[in-house]
Amino acid sequence: MKNTILLNSRPEGKPQESDFKFVNQEVGTPSNNEILIESKYVSVDPYLRGRMSDAKSYVPPFKLNEPITSGIVAEVLQSENSYFKKGDFVTGNLPWKKQQVVNPENLQKVDPEKAPLSTYLGILGLTGLTAYLGLTEIGKPKKGETLVVSGAAGAVGSVVGQIGKILGLHVVGVAGSDEKVEMLTSKFGFDKGINYKTTDNMAKAIADACPNGVDVYFDNVGGEISDGVLVNINKFARIAICGAIAVYNKTSIPKALAVQPFLVKNSALMQGFIVSNYQDKFGEASKQLAQWLQEDKLVYEETMVKGFENIPQAFLDLFEGKNKGKMVVQV
Amino acid sequence: MKNTILLNSRPEGKPQESDFKFVNQEVGTPSNNEILIESKYVSVDPYLRGRMSDAKSYVPPFKLNEPITSGIVAEVLQSENSYFKKGDFVTGNLPWKKQQVVNPENLQKVDPEKAPLSTYLGILGLTGLTAYLGLTEIGKPKKGETLVVSGAAGAVGSVVGQIGKILGLHVVGVAGSDEKVEMLTSKFGFDKGINYKTTDNMAKAIADACPNGVDVYFDNVGGEISDGVLVNINKFARIAICGAIAVYNKTSIPKALAVQPFLVKNSALMQGFIVSNYQDKFGEASKQLAQWLQEDKLVYEETMVKGFENIPQAFLDLFEGKNKGKMVVQV
Repeated sequence: MKNTILLNSRPEGKPQESDFKFVNQEVGTPSNNEILIESKYVSVDPYLRGRMSDAKSYVPPFKLNEPITSGIVAEVLQSENSYFKKGDFVTGNLPWKKQQVVNPENLQKVDPEKAPLSTYLGILGLTGLTAYLGLTEIGKPKKGETLVVSGAAGAVGSVVGQIGKILGLHVVGVAGSDEKVEMLTSKFGFDKGINYKTTDNMAKAIADACPNGVDVYFDNVGGEISDGVLVNINKFARIAICGAIAVYNKTSIPKALAVQPFLVKNSALMQGFIVSNYQDKFGEASKQLAQWLQEDKLVYEETMVKGFENIPQAFLDLFEGKNKGKMVVQV
Repeated sequence: MKNTILLNSRPEGKPQESDFKFVNQEVGTPSNNEILIESKYVSVDPYLRGRMSDAKSYVPPFKLNEPITSGIVAEVLQSENSYFKKGDFVTGNLPWKKQQVVNPENLQKVDPEKAPLSTYLGILGLTGLTAYLGLTEIGKPKKGETLVVSGAAGAVGSVVGQIGKILGLHVVGVAGSDEKVEMLTSKFGFDKGINYKTTDNMAKAIADACPNGVDVYFDNVGGEISDGVLVNINKFARIAICGAIAVYNKTSIPKALAVQPFLVKNSALMQGFIVSNYQDKFGEASKQLAQWLQEDKLVYEETMVKGFENIPQAFLDLFEGKNKGKMVVQV
């Protein structure tokens, strides 16, 4: 039984199934505060692509022939730790293994009574925190302003747009299918959606959807969508760069519209981030997200794939835009 | 006698002499708190190029057939104002006229005993404030970090680098001739200079000059120089965009390296600004600059052109890099 997924090779361009390798590794038994856990839900996220390369980045690259890691919700099967009990559920950044013995010091308990377990990988996990903290700390949205979100139907983007609406902004989302665009307005309450795949002229589409210009741009994708937003920014605009999925799989960084003239003429700000930059605000942010969820002010979408063996494919599907909302694998 | 310079046409690409028109306009006599002044020194600056176009920008465009305005130091010839006396010198943003009657409410008195009059257009004027406030407010330099400055031999860049040295940074400047590069180290105290015109590979040149990577980039030019810096930025780098002279004269915004992947993987910030964003800090900044100048910690370079009739040509020469330090016309 193959119970572990290793990085088999570093992708050139688009990752492939062959970049992953399934192996069987001994699980062992817990001792000295350790616990034995079984993975229930595994998060697959675009940012993992970066860690598969060995380029300098904000987190060290995955090592070849070692397991990939990502956010996982697991059940405690056996415990030598007084805090964690058999039957508890925990979450943290963990290797892609069916079962494993771990020192739980970086794991948090999660409560299946309060919210479905998978949401701790999504709206109540790093996904929600990324949306909330990127938007509030960099975007600094003010009531009445206009917010544009790219990758708007994705896990982070759909939460960003909803928070924008809660805070009283005009919210426009960009996504890659008519079905997703429809969901932006009908399910997530965005004011407008734009299907970039059927739009010839992004700059004009953004201008039409944002009659007062763009004050805040939450960017998950980069590329031509961002070029189209850039020409529509207002004075003192803030652009939070959360990801650049449009270029993750390129073998060289592509050319894009030079941003400097737009930033200087508008005194605008563009800032990249990862959620861990704001670790000191996780408590406050989690509380706010949980409250909005409870008040039904936030809804979420999940694309749930079943089976440990389908984790690599679920990850690859992210780059085809096959997910709506958070992509999660139920083991 | 032609005493006034008007905007004759909006330049397409590079401005030309024919975009300016010399005319004679009546001067009049002062009344009701007005003063009659005579221009002594006129500042020509790259940012004026932006105002010659009618594109949306941070300041309204110049109007056709009306005078260009810029920083001017003038002498009071006649006064109907109790605060300003004949023989006083004043500075402010003023039309390109030899003599004019103005309401002086936006003018400041300057003291020729404390510093040469032209410095009030340069290191003790908006140029110095731009350098100081862009570097400190956006760049947030910390002792021991590495600062790169583009347009380093220019009016703003040469001051930025010197402030970097005062604050204890490793400072690298990029300029466009061997003579300028020599001046960076010998006159302004930069640690290293790079001549971009004789450098094949900017990214490598920056890497060689910045063994610890780039923490702060003060960008006056944009274009390929900035692309070369971008690939060398460190985590949490700060990029202050002061200008984009490399693209001001292009008829369409050129393509450049996509910045988003670099910003996101380094959690880096890029922010455009104009000095007036920090008007509330002018007092404090001016005091600091004057003190450093007095202590001989700051030196400055001026390129002085003589004659009112040469103002347009002095402006055009900026785009050929013919100035070292601040370009000023002595009327």
